[in-house]
Amino acid sequence: MQYFNDLENRKAKQIFPGVQIRTFWGDKILLAVVDLDANTVVPSHSHPHEQAGTVISGKMALTVDGEARWLEPGDTYIIPGDVAHGARTGDIPARVLDIFTPVRKEYQY
Amino acid sequence: MQYFNDLENRKAKQIFPGVQIRTFWGDKILLAVVDLDANTVVPSHSHPHEQAGTVISGKMALTVDGEARWLEPGDTYIIPGDVAHGARTGDIPARVLDIFTPVRKEYQY
Repeated sequence: MQYFNDLENRKAKQIFPGVQIRTFWGDKILLAVVDLDANTVVPSHSHPHEQAGTVISGKMALTVDGEARWLEPGDTYIIPGDVAHGARTGDIPARVLDIFTPVRKEYQY
Repeated sequence: MQYFNDLENRKAKQIFPGVQIRTFWGDKILLAVVDLDANTVVPSHSHPHEQAGTVISGKMALTVDGEARWLEPGDTYIIPGDVAHGARTGDIPARVLDIFTPVRKEYQY
């Protein structure tokens, strides 16, 4: 088990145009470091996993169940399972840490 | 349910000298925004909960099962349940996001 995640050497995966993830996981938690290009949209979607997260750098607008908020580094959020959410960036890119439980199997690539 | 965590209005709780937390939780995930003063030590400890986290600002040395690493903003880690870990800061304070599953009941204050 590797405790310290090696971001530089983790292969990236594109999940939407302009959105790349690099993932790490334990038994119950999967972490996704998400890089969003500027002026990018993550369409609204949902999944049974509970999700939480924080902005690492840049700025991202997150919409959860119709409620939108611009988030900056250190801001955090919690999204219950099966609740619709989407995101977008403005003129600057963003790096975000998304946390899922249980582990999202499609992100164990 | 509040999706966007209001850090400014969340009451802080001291868990070790020089270490304060502000917590938020869903059904399965508890988030702790942890503020560590400079030159502070979190003694080695363990708990059955799986833990992950990232540094939001500053710098923190994390030791997991005897392996130590200095972490900077955006670095992430995963600590399995029941594995001993501790932390310390140097000459600057640190703000860290710790993630626990299941919810740590003693942090639901």
